[in-house]
Amino acid sequence: MPSSSINKDLQAERDKCSFDKKEFTLWWVGGKEKLKEKEDLEQFFANDPEFHNDPPIHFLSHKELYEETIRQSTAIFRKVRKFHEDRGNGDPSNYMSILGGLLGNGIIRQGNPLGIHFAMFVPALLGHGSPEQQAEWLPRALKCQMLGTYAQTELGHGTFLRGLETTATYDEKTKEFVLQSPTLSSYKWWPGGLAHTANYCVVMAQLFSKGKSHGIQPFIVQLRDEESHMPLKGITIGEIGNKLGMNGVNNGFLGFDQVRIPRKNMLMKNAKLLEDGTFVKPPSQALTYGTMMFVRVVICRDMAAYLSKAVTIAVRYSAVRRQSHINPNEPEVQVIDHLTQQYKLFPALAKSVIFKLASDNLWEMYNQVTSELDKGDLERLPELHAVACCLKAITTADAATGVEVCRLACGGHGYMTCSNFYGTYGMVTAACTYEGENTVLLLQTARYLLKAWLQAQRGQELVPTVQYLARFLSSNNRRVDWDDSISGIIRSLQTVAAGKLRLAAEHIEQRQKAGATQEEATNQTSIELARTADAHCRAFLVQSGYEMIEKACQTASPELARVLRSLYHLYTYDEALKALGDLLRFTTISESDINRLQAKLEATLAELRPNAVGIVDSFDLPDDVLGSPLGAYDGNVYERLYEEAKKSPLNQEPVNQSFHKYLKPFMKSSL
Amino acid sequence: MPSSSINKDLQAERDKCSFDKKEFTLWWVGGKEKLKEKEDLEQFFANDPEFHNDPPIHFLSHKELYEETIRQSTAIFRKVRKFHEDRGNGDPSNYMSILGGLLGNGIIRQGNPLGIHFAMFVPALLGHGSPEQQAEWLPRALKCQMLGTYAQTELGHGTFLRGLETTATYDEKTKEFVLQSPTLSSYKWWPGGLAHTANYCVVMAQLFSKGKSHGIQPFIVQLRDEESHMPLKGITIGEIGNKLGMNGVNNGFLGFDQVRIPRKNMLMKNAKLLEDGTFVKPPSQALTYGTMMFVRVVICRDMAAYLSKAVTIAVRYSAVRRQSHINPNEPEVQVIDHLTQQYKLFPALAKSVIFKLASDNLWEMYNQVTSELDKGDLERLPELHAVACCLKAITTADAATGVEVCRLACGGHGYMTCSNFYGTYGMVTAACTYEGENTVLLLQTARYLLKAWLQAQRGQELVPTVQYLARFLSSNNRRVDWDDSISGIIRSLQTVAAGKLRLAAEHIEQRQKAGATQEEATNQTSIELARTADAHCRAFLVQSGYEMIEKACQTASPELARVLRSLYHLYTYDEALKALGDLLRFTTISESDINRLQAKLEATLAELRPNAVGIVDSFDLPDDVLGSPLGAYDGNVYERLYEEAKKSPLNQEPVNQSFHKYLKPFMKSSL
Repeated sequence: MPSSSINKDLQAERDKCSFDKKEFTLWWVGGKEKLKEKEDLEQFFANDPEFHNDPPIHFLSHKELYEETIRQSTAIFRKVRKFHEDRGNGDPSNYMSILGGLLGNGIIRQGNPLGIHFAMFVPALLGHGSPEQQAEWLPRALKCQMLGTYAQTELGHGTFLRGLETTATYDEKTKEFVLQSPTLSSYKWWPGGLAHTANYCVVMAQLFSKGKSHGIQPFIVQLRDEESHMPLKGITIGEIGNKLGMNGVNNGFLGFDQVRIPRKNMLMKNAKLLEDGTFVKPPSQALTYGTMMFVRVVICRDMAAYLSKAVTIAVRYSAVRRQSHINPNEPEVQVIDHLTQQYKLFPALAKSVIFKLASDNLWEMYNQVTSELDKGDLERLPELHAVACCLKAITTADAATGVEVCRLACGGHGYMTCSNFYGTYGMVTAACTYEGENTVLLLQTARYLLKAWLQAQRGQELVPTVQYLARFLSSNNRRVDWDDSISGIIRSLQTVAAGKLRLAAEHIEQRQKAGATQEEATNQTSIELARTADAHCRAFLVQSGYEMIEKACQTASPELARVLRSLYHLYTYDEALKALGDLLRFTTISESDINRLQAKLEATLAELRPNAVGIVDSFDLPDDVLGSPLGAYDGNVYERLYEEAKKSPLNQEPVNQSFHKYLKPFMKSSL
Repeated sequence: MPSSSINKDLQAERDKCSFDKKEFTLWWVGGKEKLKEKEDLEQFFANDPEFHNDPPIHFLSHKELYEETIRQSTAIFRKVRKFHEDRGNGDPSNYMSILGGLLGNGIIRQGNPLGIHFAMFVPALLGHGSPEQQAEWLPRALKCQMLGTYAQTELGHGTFLRGLETTATYDEKTKEFVLQSPTLSSYKWWPGGLAHTANYCVVMAQLFSKGKSHGIQPFIVQLRDEESHMPLKGITIGEIGNKLGMNGVNNGFLGFDQVRIPRKNMLMKNAKLLEDGTFVKPPSQALTYGTMMFVRVVICRDMAAYLSKAVTIAVRYSAVRRQSHINPNEPEVQVIDHLTQQYKLFPALAKSVIFKLASDNLWEMYNQVTSELDKGDLERLPELHAVACCLKAITTADAATGVEVCRLACGGHGYMTCSNFYGTYGMVTAACTYEGENTVLLLQTARYLLKAWLQAQRGQELVPTVQYLARFLSSNNRRVDWDDSISGIIRSLQTVAAGKLRLAAEHIEQRQKAGATQEEATNQTSIELARTADAHCRAFLVQSGYEMIEKACQTASPELARVLRSLYHLYTYDEALKALGDLLRFTTISESDINRLQAKLEATLAELRPNAVGIVDSFDLPDDVLGSPLGAYDGNVYERLYEEAKKSPLNQEPVNQSFHKYLKPFMKSSL
């Protein structure tokens, strides 16, 4: 077993930390109460043999992994139930937040096939079910007496909802819907838990009644017999196969052959179908924004969590690992002392913080907009949607890159599955595709920006996140004066976004004048549009980060405030230097300004260097959650790697059977 | 089974191809003879049931995968042997090139534990063994009667060779070496085939004799009994565990406890240890460059091969997949018609070609330098080393990014293991770390550039790849006039590299004047130095690509020449626009120039659009090699995905046992 003593290099790092780590942690998790809750939960799950895998799951076959995940998932649900009951709070609707935390924390590393039940099936009942429908299904669903999933995506159809092919045709005679998969490409594909776990499903299908289409509507469909779990008649069901990650999720496919369900199984909180087959439109579509927004806030927060995990592992490892000399005749240095290593890890450290704050900020915006919505004020909804789209795209893309940079910074050992970078990457990169593919989302934000650009040109009042367009217009498109203060950098990045938006708008106009339809012109300008949305998002992140960090600094100790500002500065200088080409186009930045900015960035790396281990310690991620021999608190990297290797089933016998079966006969056969 | 008819969208793409695909293929593979050889080999292996996995390997456990790989590897070796014998060429030293091709082509998707025997063990015998030593071991090694591996990297020591801790101490009394692992961190770690496959090993260890160290030397060590395969006394051996990829490679660890080997087991072609313990230095170190160079040429070529595979899959899928409208009231469009999709895929297409040509070019340089070496002329060796270092770093990094871009461009289906992006990524991203970590290699190139900069300042004659430094100096550091001709862009990219080098050199000097040692100053400037090497490499790639493409166009038909030049133009415009910030600093490029360059890039995407499928077809990668339902020649994507899903072991029974064991009891338990 790894010795319990702390690696001396890591201890030396901790000794030089300049701030109170407990204060950082309290701020990071959101206060004393939240920290207590987190610690209670960690305690409750710690060292529970039910959650330890022997051998580790990466040695299992695909099928064994699913079975092991079901064992663990049901154990976790039971245990979470108990956790609540012990505290006198047995309300199952509270499970999800805790489960979300557990999943994010990685107790179940390859995803949970029951997760979708609370994450989408129950919310779909709440969001789309009438009071009577909720009364019928919700109690059973909340008690997990029925297990559901949510089937929207099809084999041939993803992001573009209107393209879905599955049909639900109303049969007036029997008062039933007939569900049908008209083609192979209409098979439902991807829903989590669908393959072998769920027995019920919300199915999104094209509603037909009286020979007319009424768009995509949600239906409750029973998939499997409650006793035998056998698929019901007309249902073709199975799993879609192995994936880059999330192999516990049990993603499935589903085909319908004349499956009949009663009329009451169409969820009718919004749109309705009357008994005689008359379709009744919903009063407003705005309500559906809610869940989507919420999911994007969660994604953005998760990205911060995953990135903070990867960077914790990489920073600790880089403090322990020694390689190459800087000065000859001195010992090999900690790799974290190589400036190039700092430049790989510390921006990822800063992004973990800034993305988490952006998620908090988005959440505040969401709550504000929702309260306005309740008063019937829809004005800021499109703005919120535009911010959420691009934040989802940028935080997932940057987190994925960041995790890979951290992994590569750990060299060969980062390539080991046990180091837990690859599992983390699998979770993060999936988020680049699900809940709206990133390029599609950037183009949605760009569409919003084009409208805002028109409003700005007309001198109309602009909502907060695009007010910089008015300033840009009032400057007559002139280059903004560069200054490298924070407010100067924010102004410059906003000018970049505005300048790119102006160009994209002009190019669309030119292409329309040359004969293209508006849609063709937009497609022809889409590279620029996606980049414009990217620039808008980065300006938002830098601005939002500033506000959130300064808010934190109002109550922080001077030592903590200094560290938080260093992280923010690094993020901002790094973003500015990455946007250098654009800054040169849209601001007056000069060659000496560039050198000065690079020097500032390097000075910030130096500032953060002595506190890097302290900062990742403050993220307060227990070893169980990090799940990596490279990142454990004690820094006994090599001992732990060796322990992990010894767990391999291949290492349980000195000679593998394949030697006798294949290798020896091969070696003995003469040429 | 998928129908054998071709998807009609894919057929329409093929119908509009403007060039002769056969002509492209002949150029791509290197002539009629090579094509014949390739086709013969494909034929020889095609439809051999020994190479079909049921179920596919991604459903296997870690241990099963190893056993299945040994079965396949020995079958392949036997079959390659037969292939040669059938042609009257039984010389086993020819195996490696064919095996290399097979591995690159992905018949064994997770790497081959026997590969290292021919890739490193045999070459080590050839490179380090004296004639007597070769006579003793080579015949048995070539017949695979002994199977070897090559152990250099240790648990705590990678790129920095001098840090290795394993010792080989000469015992004058017994005329033996005693091998010892003094610490856990000195355990050999990573060698392929070491864990359970090889029975011999070349071990790199610190030689001690007469109480003095004589640096790292190679030793032949027997690891396992030839009959029983049991590890020998004093040998601790096993596998290091599961990895992101290459799980068939059987990477192992190895510890020595007083393992004695005879004196003749030190490989003594170069350095020698006499019987009395006297160490005799080797005459020259230059020879060791050879293997390293060769490996880097191969890596660079492999990167082109992997990237061409990923882009073939993604381009075909994007021609079949339809999503969203461009013009409303028209059908959903092929996703390849979205400009953003073209901008993801076509640069990867161009890079496949340019990287392959760079590998060819490097190979020519290598052969030229080697022939000069034979005449005792070492002058161009450092230049060659500098080019090889940065090419390895940039091609592996860009190929890894390119494969991921292709995967993400295929949305959710790209996330499926069966789509074969993830397996490809696992192979490519590993190359960012092995054979010299990329950042370390870039800094090696930068070190060379700093020397060249000094030579340039002194007015000394410069070797070809850095002659641009003289031109830069003669221009008095002035910004170079931008023009967007190819030669103009090449000149500009070279100016960028020179300009960045000048700044880095100045900053090192300033830091030294401020009191830093040269080494400290270099470390403090290493972010800039790595970027300088990156810029140098990209200028080289654009220049080299130009020469190689123009050479090809001399004999190509006008139609083919047009396509090759389009690919080159796209690569070049893309590289230039990615370096925009630097172009704005070091050239006179203006705002209207930038818009013009962007327009040129977009025009090139449009030029390539109708030929995209034709180009990937011309790479001539059989379905077996692509191994992806998304990329098959017939384009029956959905049918093939469904077939793949049905192979999952979980789909062989309607209800998984975990339902009865865990799920049902959980659902029935009341709250």
